[in-house]
Amino acid sequence: MNPDRYRVAPGQAVHLKDWATDDNGGLSKEEGQARLPGLLTRLADLQERLYAEGQQALLMVLQARDAGGKDGTVKKVVGAFNPNGVQVSNFKVPTEEERAHDFLWRIHARAPRHGMVGVFNRSQYEDVLVTRIHGLIDDQEAERRLQHIRAFESLLTDSGTRIVKFYLHISPEEQKARLQARLDNPSKHWKFNPGDLEERARWDDYTQAYEAALTTSTAASPWYVIPADRKWFRNLLISQILVDTLEDMNPQYPAPTFDAASITIQ
Amino acid sequence: MNPDRYRVAPGQAVHLKDWATDDNGGLSKEEGQARLPGLLTRLADLQERLYAEGQQALLMVLQARDAGGKDGTVKKVVGAFNPNGVQVSNFKVPTEEERAHDFLWRIHARAPRHGMVGVFNRSQYEDVLVTRIHGLIDDQEAERRLQHIRAFESLLTDSGTRIVKFYLHISPEEQKARLQARLDNPSKHWKFNPGDLEERARWDDYTQAYEAALTTSTAASPWYVIPADRKWFRNLLISQILVDTLEDMNPQYPAPTFDAASITIQ
Repeated sequence: MNPDRYRVAPGQAVHLKDWATDDNGGLSKEEGQARLPGLLTRLADLQERLYAEGQQALLMVLQARDAGGKDGTVKKVVGAFNPNGVQVSNFKVPTEEERAHDFLWRIHARAPRHGMVGVFNRSQYEDVLVTRIHGLIDDQEAERRLQHIRAFESLLTDSGTRIVKFYLHISPEEQKARLQARLDNPSKHWKFNPGDLEERARWDDYTQAYEAALTTSTAASPWYVIPADRKWFRNLLISQILVDTLEDMNPQYPAPTFDAASITIQ
Repeated sequence: MNPDRYRVAPGQAVHLKDWATDDNGGLSKEEGQARLPGLLTRLADLQERLYAEGQQALLMVLQARDAGGKDGTVKKVVGAFNPNGVQVSNFKVPTEEERAHDFLWRIHARAPRHGMVGVFNRSQYEDVLVTRIHGLIDDQEAERRLQHIRAFESLLTDSGTRIVKFYLHISPEEQKARLQARLDNPSKHWKFNPGDLEERARWDDYTQAYEAALTTSTAASPWYVIPADRKWFRNLLISQILVDTLEDMNPQYPAPTFDAASITIQ
C-alpha cells in the first residue's frame, strides 16, 4: 500500500472516473484490519508530541458525497487521538451571521492553534460544490473562490499548519446501498435526508465540481483521493497518510526549562 | 459501587479530609477494568442519541489539583465518545482579551450547543481557586463570583444543558508520586511545571477554596468528589456517573420527517 499513489500532484488534472473507488491496496480485509491498531497507536503517540511541542498544527479536511464516510472516518480514525488535542468542526449550512461575511470567515475562525489537530468535517470546499451546483454562484465566481482558498491555505501552511485534504471517493452503487441501509434501519433515520436524493441525481455535476476543487492540491496542502467503498481500507489508508504526514512534521518534546535532577518534591 | 455516595448534596458542607481519595468501590482493579469497556460502549451509544436528538446538551466540568488526572480522564473516558459530538475546552491563564471581560465571558462562549457533549478541562472554578489563593481576589469577591457561577449554571440548566462537575480528589502522597514520575521520565518533562510545587505547598489553602467551590452543587448541576488516587476507579466511577446522567436525560432518536417505506433510491 503506497499512499503516494492516491495523492493528487500539483497541477495534475484529475478525472475521477479513472480513480478506483473499491481499491484494497493489495490487502485482504483481515490483513487491513490487523494493521490498523498499530497505526492508530502510532498516531496517538505522534499527536502527543505535536501537542507537547506546540509549534505546529495539523489540519485534516474531509470532503465526500452524502454517505461517503466522513462521520465514520471521524469516529474510527480521529477517535484514536487524545480529545484534548483535537478540534472537530462540522460546517453546516451557513447561518445568517456567517452569510453576512466572506465565505472563509467562519472557516478561519476554526483554524487549529499550534499543537492541535483540526478536523474539518465539510469545509471551505462546500462553497465551490453545493453552491456551484445549485447555481448560487457561477463558474467564474467558483474559480475566484478557488483562488481565495489557495491563498488562504498558503497563509496557514506558511504559519506552521500542515494541511491534508481527503476526498472520500465512493461509487454510485455504494452510495445507493448506504442510503438504503439508513432507510432500512429506524435508528439510522436521523442520518437520512430526502434532499440527499436530489444531490445524488446530480452525480456528474458534483464529479465536475470536485475535479475543479482537486486542482488546489499543492505539496504543503495536498489532496488525496481515497477509495472509500471499503470502510476498512478507507480507515487504513487515511491513518497511514496521517502517520506519514506527522512523521514528516517530526514534532519533538520541548527541552525542559528546568534541571530535573536538582528538583526535590517536598 | 453506588455513585450517589460521591455526590455533594445541595447545601451540604464538604470537609474534604472526610472524603476518601483511595476508595475502590469494593471492587478489585481487575473487576473494575473488566467493567469499563461495557460502560464506555453504553456511553458512546447514549451520546449518539443525544447528538441525533439535538435538543439537550451535556457539560462535564473537570477540576483537580496538579496531576489530579484531568488529562487522563479526557483521554480514557471522553475518548470513548464520537469526536464529532464532543467539544473539549482547555481553559488556561486568561489572555489579555479575556481579562478585559467578565470572568464568565470566555466560559460562556464555549458552552456546548444542543446535541453536544462539552468538556471543560479546568473551568470557571479556576477563578475562585488560583486567583483566591494568590490574593488576586479577596474572600468577598470570591463569594460574589460563586454567586455569579450559580446564576450562570442555572441559565444553562434552564436551557437544556445538564451539568456534571467532577472534583478529582487525590492525596498529597499520590500527587507527590505522580509529579516525581514526571520528573523521572524525560518524555513527561513537558507536563512538569516547577510552579506546580508552589501550588502544592499551599495544599490546605486549596482544600479550603475547593470546599467553598463545592457549595455550588445543585440537583441540576451537581458536584461529585471522585476518589482519584486509583486511576482505574476514577475512570470507572466517572463513566458510571455519565451513563446514569445520560440515561436520566433519556435522549431519543427524532421521529423521521419522511415515510421510509415510500422512498425509492434511483
